[in-house]
Amino acid sequence: MSLRTANNPKRYLLARAMAPELVTADDILEFDLDSNPVKDAQLALYLERYIHSEIFKVRPDINAVVHNHSPSVIPFGVSTVSLRPLFNTAAFIGEGVPTFEIRDFQESGDLIVKTPHLGASLAKTLGAKPAALMRGHGAVVVGESLMLAVVRGIYLELSAKLQMQAMLIAGPGGKVVYLDDREVATTTSRQASAGTWKRSWDLWCTKARAQIEMEQKAKRRRRK
Amino acid sequence: MSLRTANNPKRYLLARAMAPELVTADDILEFDLDSNPVKDAQLALYLERYIHSEIFKVRPDINAVVHNHSPSVIPFGVSTVSLRPLFNTAAFIGEGVPTFEIRDFQESGDLIVKTPHLGASLAKTLGAKPAALMRGHGAVVVGESLMLAVVRGIYLELSAKLQMQAMLIAGPGGKVVYLDDREVATTTSRQASAGTWKRSWDLWCTKARAQIEMEQKAKRRRRK
Amino acid sequence: MSLRTANNPKRYLLARAMAPELVTADDILEFDLDSNPVKDAQLALYLERYIHSEIFKVRPDINAVVHNHSPSVIPFGVSTVSLRPLFNTAAFIGEGVPTFEIRDFQESGDLIVKTPHLGASLAKTLGAKPAALMRGHGAVVVGESLMLAVVRGIYLELSAKLQMQAMLIAGPGGKVVYLDDREVATTTSRQASAGTWKRSWDLWCTKARAQIEMEQKAKRRRRK
Amino acid sequence: MSLRTANNPKRYLLARAMAPELVTADDILEFDLDSNPVKDAQLALYLERYIHSEIFKVRPDINAVVHNHSPSVIPFGVSTVSLRPLFNTAAFIGEGVPTFEIRDFQESGDLIVKTPHLGASLAKTLGAKPAALMRGHGAVVVGESLMLAVVRGIYLELSAKLQMQAMLIAGPGGKVVYLDDREVATTTSRQASAGTWKRSWDLWCTKARAQIEMEQKAKRRRRK
Repeated sequence: MSLRTANNPKRYLLARAMAPELVTADDILEFDLDSNPVKDAQLALYLERYIHSEIFKVRPDINAVVHNHSPSVIPFGVSTVSLRPLFNTAAFIGEGVPTFEIRDFQESGDLIVKTPHLGASLAKTLGAKPAALMRGHGAVVVGESLMLAVVRGIYLELSAKLQMQAMLIAGPGGKVVYLDDREVATTTSRQASAGTWKRSWDLWCTKARAQIEMEQKAKRRRRK
Repeated sequence: MSLRTANNPKRYLLARAMAPELVTADDILEFDLDSNPVKDAQLALYLERYIHSEIFKVRPDINAVVHNHSPSVIPFGVSTVSLRPLFNTAAFIGEGVPTFEIRDFQESGDLIVKTPHLGASLAKTLGAKPAALMRGHGAVVVGESLMLAVVRGIYLELSAKLQMQAMLIAGPGGKVVYLDDREVATTTSRQASAGTWKRSWDLWCTKARAQIEMEQKAKRRRRK
Repeated sequence: MSLRTANNPKRYLLARAMAPELVTADDILEFDLDSNPVKDAQLALYLERYIHSEIFKVRPDINAVVHNHSPSVIPFGVSTVSLRPLFNTAAFIGEGVPTFEIRDFQESGDLIVKTPHLGASLAKTLGAKPAALMRGHGAVVVGESLMLAVVRGIYLELSAKLQMQAMLIAGPGGKVVYLDDREVATTTSRQASAGTWKRSWDLWCTKARAQIEMEQKAKRRRRK
Repeated sequence: MSLRTANNPKRYLLARAMAPELVTADDILEFDLDSNPVKDAQLALYLERYIHSEIFKVRPDINAVVHNHSPSVIPFGVSTVSLRPLFNTAAFIGEGVPTFEIRDFQESGDLIVKTPHLGASLAKTLGAKPAALMRGHGAVVVGESLMLAVVRGIYLELSAKLQMQAMLIAGPGGKVVYLDDREVATTTSRQASAGTWKRSWDLWCTKARAQIEMEQKAKRRRRK
């Protein structure tokens, strides 16, 4: 997860290469839009940081980028079935969630986005959309704010899971009612203005804080 | 979740707009049946409080209303497959669980029940039933008591999950034995009189209390 | 869960009617094989205690009976698809898991086993088998020891879940290799003699104790 | 889980027969490659320790062996559907995951690998691959290091779950894009050199330590 810096749109914050769950404030570094660290910290960096910088370059409307391996979206990324908007909190899916096929942009066979070229290709696939699936890998989700990118990431996972269930219940050729274009437009617009996400965000922050405290306590005990 | 006040059937209790998991006694407000707060508290209110007031208006037998986004029922709400009574503790589904299609009652395209008109339309779809699915959104579940509404909400989720599994095991055209009308009537009637739910309720209250205490402890630590 | 008393095969122990997770030693009562409490304790009793007594009557080889609503077995109980032995730790399923259809034994339409007649009918359906499904309700699982009945109950749940998945992967008409009769016989016989279950049992007891302590701590805090 | 000893490739470490979750340093024994304990400790030993010794014998490149009953791989082991490489972190599946059919190597009908002959047969089925499914039982996963064997075991489980979902979404005859040979080769090679797994490993160790501490605390409380 990355965040464009508040005072300089040409820089962004991202952790050094480590498990996201263990990141603390000290692990967060500042990068320029070529993904060079602003201060040379002699730390291991994420190979895929170009996902973030290349999206920040072409999406001035976006201030936060999440790259994850959200399990329920991976099966959609490897199939030809599209994610479609199924319910209120995941209405943004109706704005479009394209799939990035890395085979179209390189010869090497690796699956990760480890060059500026691949990052720019992913950013191009993403276009003006809120999220893109990455075939055989995971997803990238963006937002005007950190909160919005996280909210979308969480509901993308839930929506993928429920769409699979709806398809199974309906059976081959069975009918599933997805949100129509007007529903997507009206719903996402109301959500943007009504402070809808603040409630979930408060809850998740409370829970994340509790978990962070537990992990840190365990870490301190270990050091003794 | 809302509760009709004990001493005035024309009023009900509902939290201010916030994540349900974080609600404490101080966050609960009193509303009249037009969903106006009795004391003007200058707090953000749930846009969908009309779900509660409009059901309380037309269902004098009901004292508690739960609106949720119970995940396993959402796939049924968007398909043409009905929830059917599958097992003992969810026998009440046999009384009928209609689906509320908000498209039939508005032009705007939004998916939430944010006006008295929409609340009344949902209440009409619900009719005398114990629950209704809300297409592309979630469900509403009602009860004579808070306990009954919660019990039904929890078993609605479980029953949806198990019905999907039963359908998958049976395969297309395969046989699933649902409860018949007599089983539904006899079972729900016995459950109502035999104090059946008290046992689960005691357990869930114990667990909820433990979780609340944990969250509040975390909150206090944060404030220091 | 019930246990035949060590010193009198015509008596058994069962908790008073309450959530199993909250039972403590003080809540356990002694019953005769007509399911009358040996001491009149003026406490609410499980309506379904006849499940236990009627099985103890006709199965002298059995000292423990578990009745549960194990979620993954319920879909099998309502379909015509049989549980079959799929993997090592659930090999006992190959001894047979019949389904009890309560409609065949009463007119009333209720789904619970609340009379000696229904208990005896369930015991007859169970026969000499290690478990039986109860259509639209749950399962009953038996064992020579409390440990064995619990082990079987836990692996019955897991086996049902994995059999459903195997059926879905194989697809309609696809091949699934179940254990054959010799595998069932050799495997269950080795498991009976080799102390196989002691390892899982130790782990589960450790975990159960931890949870019990947590619940009781919460209870004590509440009382203050 | 076993580990070849650092100073003697003809010996390996394995716990005495007990639930893996409860193992502490004191429970770990040293064995020779015929699975005899180096010091006679008068302790119950795993019947299946030949899985480990026979693989160590024929795979000098391997220093760690995991045998588990990872739930999501069991349905693949009993079907004719192969696990295939679906996403980045489980690319190693593309090197091949054969299925061990114990029926081909014995007459007795038991499902566990309790003799040197069966262990050697499993090792032969495994060949030079990173993992093998064991029909009706579980899986064996190997690695040059303990970390790699664990990483593979965890992603084997996740990949099996997601492959099943992808197959269900795609439907009968539907298309699923698996990693091709070049993707498997490039990806696994990059993962081996880039310290990719260190991040997950750090997180899992932190979590495992926290759980171990909790279990041990509970154990100490019990002893008082």
